[in-house]
Amino acid sequence: MTRIAIVGVAGRMGRTLVNAVELDPEATLAGGVVEPGSSLAGADIGELAGVGKKGVAAVDSLEALADDVEVLIDFTAPEVTLANLAYCAAHGKRMVIGTTGMSDEQIAELDSYRERVPMVFAPNMSVGVNLTLKLLETAAKALGDEGYDIEVIEAHHRHKVDAPSGTALKMGEVVAASLGRSLNEDGVFERVGQCGPRSDKEIGFATIRAGDIVGEHTVMFATEGERIEITHKASSRMTFAKGAVRAARWVAAQPNGRYDMQDVLGLTVDA
Amino acid sequence: MTRIAIVGVAGRMGRTLVNAVELDPEATLAGGVVEPGSSLAGADIGELAGVGKKGVAAVDSLEALADDVEVLIDFTAPEVTLANLAYCAAHGKRMVIGTTGMSDEQIAELDSYRERVPMVFAPNMSVGVNLTLKLLETAAKALGDEGYDIEVIEAHHRHKVDAPSGTALKMGEVVAASLGRSLNEDGVFERVGQCGPRSDKEIGFATIRAGDIVGEHTVMFATEGERIEITHKASSRMTFAKGAVRAARWVAAQPNGRYDMQDVLGLTVDA
Amino acid sequence: MTRIAIVGVAGRMGRTLVNAVELDPEATLAGGVVEPGSSLAGADIGELAGVGKKGVAAVDSLEALADDVEVLIDFTAPEVTLANLAYCAAHGKRMVIGTTGMSDEQIAELDSYRERVPMVFAPNMSVGVNLTLKLLETAAKALGDEGYDIEVIEAHHRHKVDAPSGTALKMGEVVAASLGRSLNEDGVFERVGQCGPRSDKEIGFATIRAGDIVGEHTVMFATEGERIEITHKASSRMTFAKGAVRAARWVAAQPNGRYDMQDVLGLTVDA
Amino acid sequence: MTRIAIVGVAGRMGRTLVNAVELDPEATLAGGVVEPGSSLAGADIGELAGVGKKGVAAVDSLEALADDVEVLIDFTAPEVTLANLAYCAAHGKRMVIGTTGMSDEQIAELDSYRERVPMVFAPNMSVGVNLTLKLLETAAKALGDEGYDIEVIEAHHRHKVDAPSGTALKMGEVVAASLGRSLNEDGVFERVGQCGPRSDKEIGFATIRAGDIVGEHTVMFATEGERIEITHKASSRMTFAKGAVRAARWVAAQPNGRYDMQDVLGLTVDA
Repeated sequence: MTRIAIVGVAGRMGRTLVNAVELDPEATLAGGVVEPGSSLAGADIGELAGVGKKGVAAVDSLEALADDVEVLIDFTAPEVTLANLAYCAAHGKRMVIGTTGMSDEQIAELDSYRERVPMVFAPNMSVGVNLTLKLLETAAKALGDEGYDIEVIEAHHRHKVDAPSGTALKMGEVVAASLGRSLNEDGVFERVGQCGPRSDKEIGFATIRAGDIVGEHTVMFATEGERIEITHKASSRMTFAKGAVRAARWVAAQPNGRYDMQDVLGLTVDA
Repeated sequence: MTRIAIVGVAGRMGRTLVNAVELDPEATLAGGVVEPGSSLAGADIGELAGVGKKGVAAVDSLEALADDVEVLIDFTAPEVTLANLAYCAAHGKRMVIGTTGMSDEQIAELDSYRERVPMVFAPNMSVGVNLTLKLLETAAKALGDEGYDIEVIEAHHRHKVDAPSGTALKMGEVVAASLGRSLNEDGVFERVGQCGPRSDKEIGFATIRAGDIVGEHTVMFATEGERIEITHKASSRMTFAKGAVRAARWVAAQPNGRYDMQDVLGLTVDA
Repeated sequence: MTRIAIVGVAGRMGRTLVNAVELDPEATLAGGVVEPGSSLAGADIGELAGVGKKGVAAVDSLEALADDVEVLIDFTAPEVTLANLAYCAAHGKRMVIGTTGMSDEQIAELDSYRERVPMVFAPNMSVGVNLTLKLLETAAKALGDEGYDIEVIEAHHRHKVDAPSGTALKMGEVVAASLGRSLNEDGVFERVGQCGPRSDKEIGFATIRAGDIVGEHTVMFATEGERIEITHKASSRMTFAKGAVRAARWVAAQPNGRYDMQDVLGLTVDA
Repeated sequence: MTRIAIVGVAGRMGRTLVNAVELDPEATLAGGVVEPGSSLAGADIGELAGVGKKGVAAVDSLEALADDVEVLIDFTAPEVTLANLAYCAAHGKRMVIGTTGMSDEQIAELDSYRERVPMVFAPNMSVGVNLTLKLLETAAKALGDEGYDIEVIEAHHRHKVDAPSGTALKMGEVVAASLGRSLNEDGVFERVGQCGPRSDKEIGFATIRAGDIVGEHTVMFATEGERIEITHKASSRMTFAKGAVRAARWVAAQPNGRYDMQDVLGLTVDA
């Protein structure tokens, strides 16, 4: 059983992380941290998350966590995360970091802890998305330049402001790298009017924006006679929380080092 | 049993039409026409189409058709079709016309026969596409302006030169007309980069080009909590041939007039 | 603006209903009811639902509701709902009832109020599911016995205990009724081993159970050359809440009577 | 350029193989064989296949093939294929064998040529299906017993007499073997009525039979928060022909041995 503490346990992601730990038979809730001075310090973290009383009170500083906490999961903000890394280095804890929005300097600072803390740092903790990247690499290399047309189709909710999604671009990059192509040259992001027939090497993108779609991505490989489609559908932020818990269990047995989700899953993707 | 003759019976569409008549228990092959002087005149039209000997020889002029032919199906060229209409008017025959590429003048000439010939004229004879247009109208009117985002997604083979497809645009027009919108104002044909959140009234289009896809169209209505998707997938030109045979059976019992597939199917779409 | 009160406002469905009213520009929150003696009486119903303070306190009896409430939405339990109907009859209120699990006697008692209360009573308030039933009727009647094979495919989460889903069966019934068939005779619920080719009239069902799928239903009409697929995907209980709010707005302008969602949507389905 | 001869060139699969060779820039048509005494001996094999005159006449015995033929592609019958293997062993040719329906004795006889002929023997030559098996193995091993529910969904045309398809079963076996399960124990082939919630280890199958669907297979891995779906869609027998041509090019550079499509594609699947 891996003993896990959740940083930012009162937020939406924090509460989802509590649920994900609860679902995992090989992980246990050992602590939860709220902001210094929060009125929620002292509340039961199970009740905060709606999973019933767990007998673990939220604390408002890492120093107050139980000694037996092994791994911190942190989806908060860059400065908070870096301060927490210092704590982990000093106290022999491990970290799973899903915090986004770090500057290059902040990432360099994070990286400086790699020889003192075992940590998993990944912008997208979804097991499925990371597996999908590996499947795309395998598919692209096997189909090679054998006449398979490649298209990336993604759908997200009506509020998303950019297109294609970062994950769709990452999928395109993995495919392109596997085939010696580049999205700069071979990515096709719009087709309108008399655009002519498709070229052999292009990697097309199609974007759908509607309703409450959390995130759906399909990469299609199509040729005369057949299609292979590899699809990932996220239905809630539980996918990120569960990936984080899986990473926590994995990192509990690792030496100091900075790892990503490919390491956790044992899947190395070249691109 | 409706007695049908196929004009252009030696071509790819002609042979598919022979197959479609063969599949229809209420229609029978009564004739087939090839170009004047063709070496295929006299050949059995069943053997030409690969469905076995039918005992009906191809002829190279309409005058040589059997008297009991009731309906001609014609997917040839504008001038041929117009000449054939004159023949039908003179001999009391009916026509199903899938010929495309007519000029406005040619359509006016075709239309001038409406009081002398019962005819079905439609650019897309697919029963499924025409039904889909009706379903879209029903859906758009029921969902109205209740917060459903509308997206049209279409996929075609790698050789298609324009985007979105004519059928996708037609679907968008039906939806727009049902909601008092217009594609000119509300159609969104590309989303790239920081394009901002989706607006309420936009009708988005996404285009996929790959492999040998005959034609797939989906219209999605999505809101918080649910999606309705109406999809048409064509797998071969049989869909057009079968629609034509259905139209032939229907027009055999109609008075003089120019009809379209909505009439054949008993589905009137306003747009 | 329709003035709505939510019965059972502290429950999961109640809180979702508060969210749905908030999203609707033509409806306003006028009240919320909790169980008699609940410690939540007096709490702000907006805060209860996580949408911020609305200035409306939860009450623990209908008598304490504001006079200007027009419509009650009730997804509670049969006895509670029937008592609430008596209140509405006495005080000139209207009701939208999503309560399930009523016995025949309870439905008869509910029905006895039809001449004293305008009410919408429907087991599934989803606008999309009800629209889909109408689309299926239209499609089945148009395609008729023209050689289209019909299959119903449904997917639900891993916890669902019955198969096919009630909604899948309802969809099959609508199609069967439209074609003069019956599910008893023509429904095919399993195909395993050497089951032989498909018959013309059968309506096949396929069931998927996996993960957290809220509910997805597709009805496929397939023939040589084409397929039409009509799909509904529920992503959260918001779909039921939004349908209820739409029903509340609609019933606010109706005379006494018992209505269902087909009436609300202006879509009458025969089956 | 690999020089290929097609055995059974006048049949439907033979003609498709001619088309596939024509499409491949690294393969060339060097011969075609029809049955002994066939009236089609001497006909141009390009014209037979509808791709225009190729200057290669069909012959009615292997002895009459040009000396420069490197690889024979054979999708005929067991006895014919075995006789052809003897010819290849004697004349230093290679073979790609898609023939099905061999008895155990016939397979043993075929196998006895493995030290004298480089040959690829595979019941399903589709590149996509074989790649899909590899992707399934990778996915199953990565997701392991982490709470992902696995379902196999397949759709075929109305004439198919068995269910689930052989390919669906093979997919299920690959997943089961990757997870230390067995289809005998964990395969669930029907769910009807009050069947209870899904178990953790079951691998469910859902079957769709409709219209002219050539063959579609999806394996879904679903858990709380996400789904991964791996889909193969065959649209014509070209998928098998193209796989055979790819195998022919590959086997042209191999030593004596019996290979399968996994070898051709460089993908080894354990199950």
